[in-house]
Amino acid sequence: MPTLYGVSLGPGNPKLLTLRAVEVLREAPKVFVPSSKGISRAEAIVSYFTKKRRIIRLDFPMVKDEAIVAKALQRNASRVCSILQRYGSCAYAALGDLSLYSTFWRLYPYVKEKMHDLDIEVIPGVPSFCACAASAKIPLALGDDIITIIPLSASRERIENLARYADTSILLKIKPSIIRSLKLVGKEYQQAVLAMHCSTDNEQVRVANIKELEELSKYFALMIVKRRKFL
Amino acid sequence: MPTLYGVSLGPGNPKLLTLRAVEVLREAPKVFVPSSKGISRAEAIVSYFTKKRRIIRLDFPMVKDEAIVAKALQRNASRVCSILQRYGSCAYAALGDLSLYSTFWRLYPYVKEKMHDLDIEVIPGVPSFCACAASAKIPLALGDDIITIIPLSASRERIENLARYADTSILLKIKPSIIRSLKLVGKEYQQAVLAMHCSTDNEQVRVANIKELEELSKYFALMIVKRRKFL
Repeated sequence: MPTLYGVSLGPGNPKLLTLRAVEVLREAPKVFVPSSKGISRAEAIVSYFTKKRRIIRLDFPMVKDEAIVAKALQRNASRVCSILQRYGSCAYAALGDLSLYSTFWRLYPYVKEKMHDLDIEVIPGVPSFCACAASAKIPLALGDDIITIIPLSASRERIENLARYADTSILLKIKPSIIRSLKLVGKEYQQAVLAMHCSTDNEQVRVANIKELEELSKYFALMIVKRRKFL
Repeated sequence: MPTLYGVSLGPGNPKLLTLRAVEVLREAPKVFVPSSKGISRAEAIVSYFTKKRRIIRLDFPMVKDEAIVAKALQRNASRVCSILQRYGSCAYAALGDLSLYSTFWRLYPYVKEKMHDLDIEVIPGVPSFCACAASAKIPLALGDDIITIIPLSASRERIENLARYADTSILLKIKPSIIRSLKLVGKEYQQAVLAMHCSTDNEQVRVANIKELEELSKYFALMIVKRRKFL
């Protein structure tokens, strides 16, 4: 049965791959990596563990037009299928953990449709926000704390309601309207962490006061706000 | 400076440790593991990577009485400090990712209080719910999906409100009242995954219909409910 391995590469540091991820990358005849322009961080990590000629870039256009996206996914699925037909197996590797907002699960249905007997193995990985908490040296949650994970686009009503009932909110991308929503509901928030490129040489982490958020949010990618301050 | 390494062991399979976690476990003069009775899974994993005589069990009583817990934490902190004084560094290893509900962050303030110049390095890991999604072969979230992570104890009002605004709810422990709350608000939920011991030989994963939840919830530890069905 043709097997597609989904490999989670973790937050960006090659030492934060799992042993199983390394094993699969070393054994796979070909490894696909998502790419929009030039060598992505995913490709840079994969090249630690396999030969360059085994790596194949797949173009994922960063546009909202669903027709363009679907066309790219079709094309990518065809390339994956031709490799699977030739070698019996291959890997698809992407940053973070594949279960969280990954291109892998956008691509998978298109490959499955072309290849009904396809089998997959997914290797879970370290999500970016876990690396961020580790770098900031704080826990995300303790005891009965409830966490919400919010991607870039969500309505103000949803964010306000979620933030009202959660102890920790993890914002995977930051935009001004999210910061304003949090300020409206966030009088009880006591601690914020802003971060970029966690676990890599370019890591930037700042434990901030909730009042500094709007100014600081321009410079960071990921934000964690907590109702209770840790230490 | 004395250094305490916090090592995330991941969901339970030794192959899901990161390269950095393995490196730290191999080099640490002593490795503490939480233990309530006998050999814990954490201890079993650690013993793949270091000698038995380097492993020290720390008792964390599973009781609600804060005075008893505080006393145990004081005692554990003293043991960690005496090892740090003797060897300069040591590791504390626990399942999952340490930023999520781990005993590590309960213990840390007690150690820090006894040893003001203490430095820490936290090695992030694979959370149980990422391993669960990987085993179930579904994504936790795609696109604009919002996730909530709910531990055992949360009021019905909070759970209902969170579930109303989230696309994916991850319940780290299951109890009947949570299931009933989700049924009240969850008319739109289309998919549920119940799981136990993911990534290990004892793994059990079941992709279920939302109607089967109450019956099945007796047999599983972790539950994921999703508003939209994947495939």
